[in-house]
Amino acid sequence: MVEFSSERLARLTGMLKRRGVILPAFEIHGGAAGLYDFGPVGGRLRNRVNQTWINHWQSLGNVVEISCPTVTPYPVLEASGHVGEFSDFLTECKKCGEASRADHLIEAIHPNAESLSKDELGALISENNPPCPSCGESEWGQIEAQNLMFNTKIGAGSSGRQGFLRPETAQGMFTSFTSIYRHFRERLPFGALQTGKGYRNEISPRQGMIRLREFNMAELEYFIDPEVNTVHDFSLWNQEVTLIADKEGEIVMTLGDAVEKGIIRHPTVGYFMGWTMDFLLNVGINPAHLRFRQHESNEMAHYAQDCWDAEIRGSYGWVECVGIAHRGCYDLTAHEEATGQRLRAWRTFSEPKVVEINGWTTDGAKAGPAFRALAGQVKSAVEELPPETKFPFTLSIGESAVEILPEHVKRVQRSENVNGEWFVPHVVEPAFGIDRIIWHLLDHSYSEVEKSGEDYTLLGLPELIAPVDVTVLPLYEKDGMDELALIIHRELCGKKNVFSVYDASGSIGRRYARADEIGVPWCITVDHDSLSDNSVTLRSRDTGEQTRVLINALPF
Amino acid sequence: MVEFSSERLARLTGMLKRRGVILPAFEIHGGAAGLYDFGPVGGRLRNRVNQTWINHWQSLGNVVEISCPTVTPYPVLEASGHVGEFSDFLTECKKCGEASRADHLIEAIHPNAESLSKDELGALISENNPPCPSCGESEWGQIEAQNLMFNTKIGAGSSGRQGFLRPETAQGMFTSFTSIYRHFRERLPFGALQTGKGYRNEISPRQGMIRLREFNMAELEYFIDPEVNTVHDFSLWNQEVTLIADKEGEIVMTLGDAVEKGIIRHPTVGYFMGWTMDFLLNVGINPAHLRFRQHESNEMAHYAQDCWDAEIRGSYGWVECVGIAHRGCYDLTAHEEATGQRLRAWRTFSEPKVVEINGWTTDGAKAGPAFRALAGQVKSAVEELPPETKFPFTLSIGESAVEILPEHVKRVQRSENVNGEWFVPHVVEPAFGIDRIIWHLLDHSYSEVEKSGEDYTLLGLPELIAPVDVTVLPLYEKDGMDELALIIHRELCGKKNVFSVYDASGSIGRRYARADEIGVPWCITVDHDSLSDNSVTLRSRDTGEQTRVLINALPF
Repeated sequence: MVEFSSERLARLTGMLKRRGVILPAFEIHGGAAGLYDFGPVGGRLRNRVNQTWINHWQSLGNVVEISCPTVTPYPVLEASGHVGEFSDFLTECKKCGEASRADHLIEAIHPNAESLSKDELGALISENNPPCPSCGESEWGQIEAQNLMFNTKIGAGSSGRQGFLRPETAQGMFTSFTSIYRHFRERLPFGALQTGKGYRNEISPRQGMIRLREFNMAELEYFIDPEVNTVHDFSLWNQEVTLIADKEGEIVMTLGDAVEKGIIRHPTVGYFMGWTMDFLLNVGINPAHLRFRQHESNEMAHYAQDCWDAEIRGSYGWVECVGIAHRGCYDLTAHEEATGQRLRAWRTFSEPKVVEINGWTTDGAKAGPAFRALAGQVKSAVEELPPETKFPFTLSIGESAVEILPEHVKRVQRSENVNGEWFVPHVVEPAFGIDRIIWHLLDHSYSEVEKSGEDYTLLGLPELIAPVDVTVLPLYEKDGMDELALIIHRELCGKKNVFSVYDASGSIGRRYARADEIGVPWCITVDHDSLSDNSVTLRSRDTGEQTRVLINALPF
Repeated sequence: MVEFSSERLARLTGMLKRRGVILPAFEIHGGAAGLYDFGPVGGRLRNRVNQTWINHWQSLGNVVEISCPTVTPYPVLEASGHVGEFSDFLTECKKCGEASRADHLIEAIHPNAESLSKDELGALISENNPPCPSCGESEWGQIEAQNLMFNTKIGAGSSGRQGFLRPETAQGMFTSFTSIYRHFRERLPFGALQTGKGYRNEISPRQGMIRLREFNMAELEYFIDPEVNTVHDFSLWNQEVTLIADKEGEIVMTLGDAVEKGIIRHPTVGYFMGWTMDFLLNVGINPAHLRFRQHESNEMAHYAQDCWDAEIRGSYGWVECVGIAHRGCYDLTAHEEATGQRLRAWRTFSEPKVVEINGWTTDGAKAGPAFRALAGQVKSAVEELPPETKFPFTLSIGESAVEILPEHVKRVQRSENVNGEWFVPHVVEPAFGIDRIIWHLLDHSYSEVEKSGEDYTLLGLPELIAPVDVTVLPLYEKDGMDELALIIHRELCGKKNVFSVYDASGSIGRRYARADEIGVPWCITVDHDSLSDNSVTLRSRDTGEQTRVLINALPF
């Protein structure tokens, strides 16, 4: 079992930077905290993990991919609640001006500082006077809630409108609901996923890839009818899983049992936990360092019905890498209320119902000219009024008050056959932090061994996501070995889904070591014999085994 | 041959929106000009075109993918020249306040309004008084240069720093040069590519997908040694190509001939034009609507040595979709100068050279303590001084003046064997606008025909990038046909690189038409016979041919 330590972390981080996997961005210009590059090796790793994630969820059969802008107008994120809620508490050092997160300052003093209120944080800071992480002084300004979205302005001059960089990809799936619903020919359940950048203007980023200001997200919004009892096949997962349940604490059981016992409160949440586990293990997460933790009721968003984090253990301890939340009807309802548009699905009753209608509606001939653009909203509101309502009556429509006179309305009293009804679908959302997952799969696959008395490191990446599939090595750069190696290399590069690297510098042993260090599963060596017999040596990273293979029988 | 017209454009745009290919973003919240969604069909189209582009260029064998942040600190874009140069001229309507691009207002009056200066634009506008496109009035304010980058602030409180959303992906390849150079074991030529979002805060976006505020870019920066005569194989392209050359005007010839005649001024530019053409034709651009146009000298960036645009003809006329530019050493030099870091490659001479050194260097024992952090820069500067320099001497180091005393320096006079030298690589950059290419491949593959007396539309997308590979249709949703169809559908969805849609609504003819409309190459129909003989009907979009195939012999 790997022993995580800060020394190992420093060596791993150094290797990742030196080999061009992950490195601080814009470093020649002094860098910028919380911004990272995926370099010449990491770029393809990011791409493959991302694409593997998309393929994995699309294989459900009723999930589509969409792609929305990252620049988002103010009203969208006001409706979603991000303008009001997406914030941390900040305080500035009076000496050096550096901003710090208030809860970070008292982490050593309080076990759960993140959950404290502004006043509690203020009291603890003035009592304990923690030092500024930047200058060491202890003089703190006011604590203020700081919204964590990156601000920008869409458009130029005075006609420019306020906007933000999206804090999550999820809102795109909600604002596009109508299009997705139509695509699936109005049949639930279905899902839409999106991968791409998310942004969070962290007050003081730290912990490398764990807390970024710009990150790679991957989210699925899965829309379901809350009245349908979904049956999922949990026989796919016979293994026992570590669960930290809200009430029961740590338990080890199968996902199927946890759903049956009601510990996981919705079967689709449990099913997606299994689907999530499959993905994480496929890309190289070690199951010994994986657990699912249920949010406590006071930690969960008020609208959420259940939420489980997949937590992965690595050099930074246990880190939340995926959240699987049952969000109820919160999001679609929020956008409905803000826009007046219908974001609903139609449910056909198994048999028509007779409904007694007893109330009011508008008289179109009078109400139309009187209320113009608001006429539709006035009609809906009037139809909600109880039969005993007296007119004139003042309605609140959005932010305006509308006076309804007796002449605008008609009494309605009848029974009606109704075939079905509109309802707001519920949403189950698995949300993945791709950077955190990439960090941990690197952390788990990195091993330090000794070879012929020297330190030797190896990345045991699964072939599915290894950024380089194969390296081609001429034994020497002469006698045509380099030409033949280049021909093989270029042919491999031309194949879909194969990425080859040509390496001619240094001894073969050094080149094998270089390939092992970044987790290349296979090496091909072209030697003198290759020139006459068209065979090469194929070496496996994992077994070290070398076999002689004909060039046209290479397994790529 | 397709006749492009505004009526056809309106029908195509309507279809793309209705079917969830491309649609205005955030429409339920009133939308935002210049921001588009790729919907449930378009999302996968975007992904496939993007991935096809990456695979295409990686197949060169010496190209890697990287991925950098979109949020970019001010100094990076100051060094690249974007802070100073990346702007359009704006004027505001005094009546309604709407901002317009000054050159757009006088497009009808001047054939090349984009090239005019601020004063020329001002004169033409006050002479002609064009109407405001928003309110129709003709009263214009001052003309001002408006930088087109989206502004933001990185970090919170007073410690936040100014930043921008990147206007292109290219800068990431330059700031990462050292890492890429190391990856390729310090051997030119090599390239690094990146795909992702680019941003341009357009004053008044128009023309749908052609002029966006947030767009999908794909750029390759290919680093070469300017002293190496590169030989490329132009026999790959025997076809004649339409070229609009700077001096010669429109000519039709092969790329090889154009390079040989010096019309294309660098062979790598010509080679990448061929590689670009292959990509465009592979994803479905009609070669009859493709041409390459050379920038005129006054249109080209001052540092560029040659630049060709791939222009594609469609519903908006000829549109620039790719730029292939020889950028010389401009970019790396600019970042070198701004940062003082070396962004160079080493060139080994074929035989060592004897170099006479006659000048000055610093005396480390004295200069070190005297200049501290600046000592390295002082040393480099002193070594550049001519032998006749008299000390004391005042050097400018960055923004500070440094006094060099006689005791700080030593005279140097000797001959040295030199094996090679550092030089700034040149860059050839193919830069692709993915959204514009997707627009045009849709435009070119869209055809309107008549079928059984009714209007019928079809997207003839290449299988390589078709967003849906196959639809599975149960003839009826009964007798087990739907169950069998779902089994086939789910199995197909589980395959890598296959995306299947299940469609059970409406007659088979209607469902075929629905599939043809979004360019699904294959339909599978499950009927009564399928239940007993395990065969299905496989229908081709392009030939309409229907063949009976065993389920386990389906070609997916």
